[in-house]
Amino acid sequence: MQNTDSSVLLARRAGAVLHLTINRPEARNAMNGELLEELIAAFEAVAACAEVRAVVLRGAGGNFCAGGDAKDFALLRRQDAAPGTDPVAAFNRRFGALLELVNGVPQAVVVVAEGAVLGGGFGLACVADVAIVRNDANFGLPETSLGVIPAQIAPFVVQRIGLSQARRLGVCGGRFDGAEAYRLGLAHYVEYGEAALAAREAQVLGQIMRCAPGANAVTKQIMLAVGGEPLGQVLDRAATLFSAALCGPEAAEGTQAFMEKRLPQWAVAGNVETGEADVR
Amino acid sequence: MQNTDSSVLLARRAGAVLHLTINRPEARNAMNGELLEELIAAFEAVAACAEVRAVVLRGAGGNFCAGGDAKDFALLRRQDAAPGTDPVAAFNRRFGALLELVNGVPQAVVVVAEGAVLGGGFGLACVADVAIVRNDANFGLPETSLGVIPAQIAPFVVQRIGLSQARRLGVCGGRFDGAEAYRLGLAHYVEYGEAALAAREAQVLGQIMRCAPGANAVTKQIMLAVGGEPLGQVLDRAATLFSAALCGPEAAEGTQAFMEKRLPQWAVAGNVETGEADVR
Amino acid sequence: MQNTDSSVLLARRAGAVLHLTINRPEARNAMNGELLEELIAAFEAVAACAEVRAVVLRGAGGNFCAGGDAKDFALLRRQDAAPGTDPVAAFNRRFGALLELVNGVPQAVVVVAEGAVLGGGFGLACVADVAIVRNDANFGLPETSLGVIPAQIAPFVVQRIGLSQARRLGVCGGRFDGAEAYRLGLAHYVEYGEAALAAREAQVLGQIMRCAPGANAVTKQIMLAVGGEPLGQVLDRAATLFSAALCGPEAAEGTQAFMEKRLPQWAVAGNVETGEADVR
Repeated sequence: MQNTDSSVLLARRAGAVLHLTINRPEARNAMNGELLEELIAAFEAVAACAEVRAVVLRGAGGNFCAGGDAKDFALLRRQDAAPGTDPVAAFNRRFGALLELVNGVPQAVVVVAEGAVLGGGFGLACVADVAIVRNDANFGLPETSLGVIPAQIAPFVVQRIGLSQARRLGVCGGRFDGAEAYRLGLAHYVEYGEAALAAREAQVLGQIMRCAPGANAVTKQIMLAVGGEPLGQVLDRAATLFSAALCGPEAAEGTQAFMEKRLPQWAVAGNVETGEADVR
Repeated sequence: MQNTDSSVLLARRAGAVLHLTINRPEARNAMNGELLEELIAAFEAVAACAEVRAVVLRGAGGNFCAGGDAKDFALLRRQDAAPGTDPVAAFNRRFGALLELVNGVPQAVVVVAEGAVLGGGFGLACVADVAIVRNDANFGLPETSLGVIPAQIAPFVVQRIGLSQARRLGVCGGRFDGAEAYRLGLAHYVEYGEAALAAREAQVLGQIMRCAPGANAVTKQIMLAVGGEPLGQVLDRAATLFSAALCGPEAAEGTQAFMEKRLPQWAVAGNVETGEADVR
Repeated sequence: MQNTDSSVLLARRAGAVLHLTINRPEARNAMNGELLEELIAAFEAVAACAEVRAVVLRGAGGNFCAGGDAKDFALLRRQDAAPGTDPVAAFNRRFGALLELVNGVPQAVVVVAEGAVLGGGFGLACVADVAIVRNDANFGLPETSLGVIPAQIAPFVVQRIGLSQARRLGVCGGRFDGAEAYRLGLAHYVEYGEAALAAREAQVLGQIMRCAPGANAVTKQIMLAVGGEPLGQVLDRAATLFSAALCGPEAAEGTQAFMEKRLPQWAVAGNVETGEADVR
């Protein structure tokens, strides 16, 4: 993948890491149709690109993503629909497809969130493998206060923080800051200021690069399967996946590197490409 | 719904809020057959009453609900049953039906708990949308120490705080206070003293009244569906529900109010009815 | 069950409590084929032994269990397999069978963990009813840094701490200490030093002995069923189990003891057998 900036989504490749930046700062990076399609295209390309091992998603200009806004809802209300079609439902479901896609890509997805993390932005934070947030980030599900619903987002909130906290936020239109997002387990790290965010991002990327990319992808796939099928079935498949991994090139390199007391190639490569001096 | 006090359950309507108070203070509000049927009747009426937007459930006299007690178990043991019937199982399952009912009503359910929150009372706290507890509240599942089981309660404990904490409490007959209930995520707020409890209740009700009642009900319905069916199916239905919400009267009012920089009608109405001066 | 020490697993019976100690201190108690089979045999015997009411599992020499190690992986890679068989997958799945077995035995399982809690050891900690850890214990899933995967472990990590934290640990090969294990809800108690660990173990065993053993087993069984079948079905079965418990000997003794203001027999017996002076 190359740098392929559109007007609303910036893409910058640095070795094994793809940096995606939502770039509608004048609208606090609110989700619209163009941004939605750009995000889907970017993550579809990521899913097919073995050279990318991690994606960092953030927003330009101090906000992550302010969700949809009331003006968009007003426009959608006025649309004429052909008989038998429901363009509003289709557009809404398309956002859910983005969340499913980001949730399931083989690569590690890191969200770095500050400022507004509302509605759809809230949903994106809920499907990151690692969410790093500023302490003063502004999380919320404002939909119900506008008379609409966080339809595609709500299920991922339940998966992220459990039913108990999700239902409270649901009925209260809950707003909270980054520190509380950390306490709820929505975010994995809370940081105070830009430098601390950047340092944490570098540390997390360093940890990801220490892990074999294929092994990471399979581990994520196994974890995402839990709950959707009987546990014994997941374990059966996992055993076959373990055998395949052990007989594959990553295990050969990993065990040999261990014997020789050196870093495996993927860690050295990741180290160089992310510009990290120390990947511990 | 009107004020319809029975001997064991007090009901007071204040605008969009129904206040239910368990009123067996001499028995620390322990659950018996009469109270169970009164609670079911009250929540069935709530579910059918669009004017009620929130229910506040608490106990009279300083305790929330002390569960069943050993004397009730002794009485149940001595009952003669007609052949082919199991009145004990039926009574037990009826309590589970109450938990399912409270869990799923379209309205927001707020539990305010102090003193004893044991057995069945523990179960009721686990199905609230918002649980506000006093720091010195006394939570516990004492059934196994009496040789019986928290049969209908245990599944809701798992849903509330996850398997890890639930199984520990299960095998240890765990007792803990309100502060620990907050740490476990069973409760959403822990407060020190009666005044703080009342202030938090007012704040939470204010937040609920800011949300459109129909939108809140649908959001809750979507959240409760997660885990019980494939995620994609939940998202498909959610998209249709989003479209219906966007084309409905709440979205019309909500987006117009937003454009006109005023509170939507449902927030003004809730504000007046709950007697809150400031619903922010 | 009697004391049946093998070379790699020590078993000591003290009344109703079976103490199992993984005994490969020279390998930091790493999991190998012999240890795996000894653990399975021990827990199969436990599951069939009504006199054992709790199992305490720990490791000898200051570590709990360091998982498999890279040398084992290298050996497994070099094995010749008969056509149509996959001994690597079979060995891996056998470890998953151990986790399923420990997860589901009727008795309360207490893990006391210090030092290395890696890979398979991490998995064992995830299926304990109660996990007590030292603050400086060393948790981690190092598999992916060696090019293999925590195949059988990952699903139990998701069940233990939820998808959000599990996926982060998965892609970061996460390492953390006992204090963080407590924060994540993986462990239920974090203690500072050997004496505090022992005191907590005694307190937890005392709580377990206060609960009727049959009632505890049924409660655990109900909790483990949640999520794997429709909730209403779990509640139906739970009602029948409640009725059976109430008509059984434990409820007779428990309610009578309550009326007579004395400890039930199972608590007195547990008290004597664990050598605890006070089981409150």
